[in-house]
Amino acid sequence: MSQETKITPRAQDYNQWYIDVIQAAEMADYSPVKGCMVIRPTGYALWENIQRVLDGMFKDTGHVNAYFPLLIPESFFKKEAEHVEGFAPECAVVTHGGGQKLEEPLFIRPTSETIIWSMYKRWIASHRDLPILINQWANVVRWEMRTRLFLRTTEFLWQEGHTAHATEAEAEEETRRMLGVYQRLAEDHLAIPVVPGLKSDREKFAGAVRTYCIEAMMQDHRALQAGTSHMLGQNFARAFDVTFQDDAGQRQLVWATSWGVSTRLIGALIMAHSDDKGLVVPPRIAATKAVVIPILGKKADPAVVLAEARKLADETGLGRGIQVDARENQSPGWKYNHWEQRGVPVRIELGPRDIDSGQAVLVRRDTGEKKPVPRAGIAQALADLLEDIHRSLYARAKAYRDEFTFDVDSADEFRQKLESPGGFLRTHWCGDGVCEGKVQEETKATIRCIPLDAKPEQGACPFCGKPSTRRVIYAKAY
Amino acid sequence: MSQETKITPRAQDYNQWYIDVIQAAEMADYSPVKGCMVIRPTGYALWENIQRVLDGMFKDTGHVNAYFPLLIPESFFKKEAEHVEGFAPECAVVTHGGGQKLEEPLFIRPTSETIIWSMYKRWIASHRDLPILINQWANVVRWEMRTRLFLRTTEFLWQEGHTAHATEAEAEEETRRMLGVYQRLAEDHLAIPVVPGLKSDREKFAGAVRTYCIEAMMQDHRALQAGTSHMLGQNFARAFDVTFQDDAGQRQLVWATSWGVSTRLIGALIMAHSDDKGLVVPPRIAATKAVVIPILGKKADPAVVLAEARKLADETGLGRGIQVDARENQSPGWKYNHWEQRGVPVRIELGPRDIDSGQAVLVRRDTGEKKPVPRAGIAQALADLLEDIHRSLYARAKAYRDEFTFDVDSADEFRQKLESPGGFLRTHWCGDGVCEGKVQEETKATIRCIPLDAKPEQGACPFCGKPSTRRVIYAKAY
Repeated sequence: MSQETKITPRAQDYNQWYIDVIQAAEMADYSPVKGCMVIRPTGYALWENIQRVLDGMFKDTGHVNAYFPLLIPESFFKKEAEHVEGFAPECAVVTHGGGQKLEEPLFIRPTSETIIWSMYKRWIASHRDLPILINQWANVVRWEMRTRLFLRTTEFLWQEGHTAHATEAEAEEETRRMLGVYQRLAEDHLAIPVVPGLKSDREKFAGAVRTYCIEAMMQDHRALQAGTSHMLGQNFARAFDVTFQDDAGQRQLVWATSWGVSTRLIGALIMAHSDDKGLVVPPRIAATKAVVIPILGKKADPAVVLAEARKLADETGLGRGIQVDARENQSPGWKYNHWEQRGVPVRIELGPRDIDSGQAVLVRRDTGEKKPVPRAGIAQALADLLEDIHRSLYARAKAYRDEFTFDVDSADEFRQKLESPGGFLRTHWCGDGVCEGKVQEETKATIRCIPLDAKPEQGACPFCGKPSTRRVIYAKAY
Repeated sequence: MSQETKITPRAQDYNQWYIDVIQAAEMADYSPVKGCMVIRPTGYALWENIQRVLDGMFKDTGHVNAYFPLLIPESFFKKEAEHVEGFAPECAVVTHGGGQKLEEPLFIRPTSETIIWSMYKRWIASHRDLPILINQWANVVRWEMRTRLFLRTTEFLWQEGHTAHATEAEAEEETRRMLGVYQRLAEDHLAIPVVPGLKSDREKFAGAVRTYCIEAMMQDHRALQAGTSHMLGQNFARAFDVTFQDDAGQRQLVWATSWGVSTRLIGALIMAHSDDKGLVVPPRIAATKAVVIPILGKKADPAVVLAEARKLADETGLGRGIQVDARENQSPGWKYNHWEQRGVPVRIELGPRDIDSGQAVLVRRDTGEKKPVPRAGIAQALADLLEDIHRSLYARAKAYRDEFTFDVDSADEFRQKLESPGGFLRTHWCGDGVCEGKVQEETKATIRCIPLDAKPEQGACPFCGKPSTRRVIYAKAY
């Protein structure tokens, strides 16, 4: 049982608020290993539910899971020039094993394209071997100097899909399909509205032809990249010499995609919904959807109230999704605060009078609204309330994002808006990476994406004045 | 689509048979990294189902999941003398990260007691913080020279439970409870009968007070350790200075357990049930429980048969658990062989005549028995058949184990039986590790366990003649 933690208000210190929310909810802890984190049960339960939802979506779209080695020979990375340049500097390197110095150093995977394509070379001979639609749930390591719980840690958990296709069109379709899966996960399960878009060449994955992403806005108006899907073209097939015989008997290079989301999503979830009282967990992804607090009062028989509380929990039909806080040494008020800090979507208060009148009181975590509900219809009332909470969390986050999304047409306005209030700056862009780089250097803002639904619009880049045909989203990002 | 692989008969070369079964079913592949394996989708699907079942059992017994760092400082291992002696020689060592030499080398976890107890020190202050019942699903690395797919690889996947308790009795109870969970997993889901028992001190986990295990017999009569549960006493609490304040306000060292099973179970499953035709998967753990083979014949309209096959698959109610093999370029016979090699428990044949007479033919993978079944009751008939297959796989494995379990009372008989046919040798043991070590050196047999249900029985150790009060199981082991 933790000490209750005081949570710094967002307005006072947003970064400290984020850390306080995590520590109060016991979601994660710093580890003795620099840059690594421990994901505690409250945090890990969210990852389990994200896994469950996403894995179902992967299977529904024809994917299967597999597992590839953690350790990758250094030489594999060198086979794809952009890839090694992007990843080698942030790798952890194993030089000794079993008491011996290794002949060749092994990298702990920062991503698995190289090891996987070395295997695809063995498995692909004919067009009948395609497509390969494999996903892997795994840990990866990328050496980080400045770390932040969930958002940027040396080791993190993720899934990485790696698919192989006979045609460019099929690979492109897969890349976009998986972006759609990520958007559904974010919006329909995490209640986080996202902008699906294309990365600029400067921001794309090292080794990709095109990188698609979903971008979300946090409560400090910064952007957070919540998932990426890469069209890798034939780059890895070329690097690992992976060809197939087509219908006409010709050898062709295989087309590739890869796509991933990580435990970073938990950071996104925290920053999208939580408040100064602590964590707010969107109901569809919550491990504990409701908690029953028995209120004993002075005259009540504790055993009777507790028995009714347990009965009530059963009546909800939520199984492991509901808990009864039966601790005797804590007051109801202490418990309210405890479960609010942990973000449980609904609190159910049950006292002797409620028992007598056949009702219970449902209290929403997001708005604090209280509502007495007859016991007879509790399961449906609770289910409806949970759905309503999901919808209102999503709507609130979307309204917030829209409020801080601005069309910006001059460099001065760009600098001003970025300074305050920040947000998504819809800005014309000349398409030149050098210009983009200068903007980043001066303002720290980057092009988050070229939105997929961007409408053609004539304009001019506010920085270099060159013509532009559509707006991109610039923002400061995590 | 793979080339169909020829499977070496067990009687000809058991080890080659094992490799052939794995390759024919495309369960795993050797990786370019020495000692590491790639778990392919057919193999990984079994691990997913083992995870699902076991994770449910963990949660039913009050456990929660968490995640601890992959990388552990070398100094942590040195805090527990036996532990470092046991594990340091087989560790992979990270010496460089982010382009820099590290100040202290980091071990890739071979097991996580040390990193976890360094965190428990932070989380435990009072008796109210206990028990902690945490499990972790993770990869671990133990440098191996002689590797064997699934059974012994440098990297493997496992779960490791790590619990903290206020009393010795509670820790002991937990250790035994989790052994029981493993036994239920093995017997009720993998259809593998196991002997639960206690390891001798020579064979126990490095750092444990007592190690319990479940031991299974493979078809070559060797033993395979299928899971272990360790009572760690106060060893790790002492090493990491983890104490709690008890009811009386006194500081006490915390009691610990740890327990794990790994992807090795997949090797056990293969060797317990498979035959010269290939893999046999026990139905409760099978990802694909049945496959429908449409038989087109010469006069049938392929579209009609295929549509009926898909309808039949729906009628079984198995969802993702049933597949229709609709490939046009392969004969039914080829498909029978293909799915037999992959171990799918039931094949359903459906031809034009079956369609006309409203039936389908169910064929068991384990016995080859065929049975026509009316379409009307197909879901129930199939469910019954799958349960029957589970029961008969278990019964067959148990009868086999019993057949090759021998009471042995002299050293000569021990040597003879071990030479042929091998098996579990129920032998009196003096209790002396030195005597045990000599037997191992001479015969390669080790004490697999002291069975928990061993009845007190007066006897003498056949090797040293000293008195003994109960029989242990000696065997050659994987």
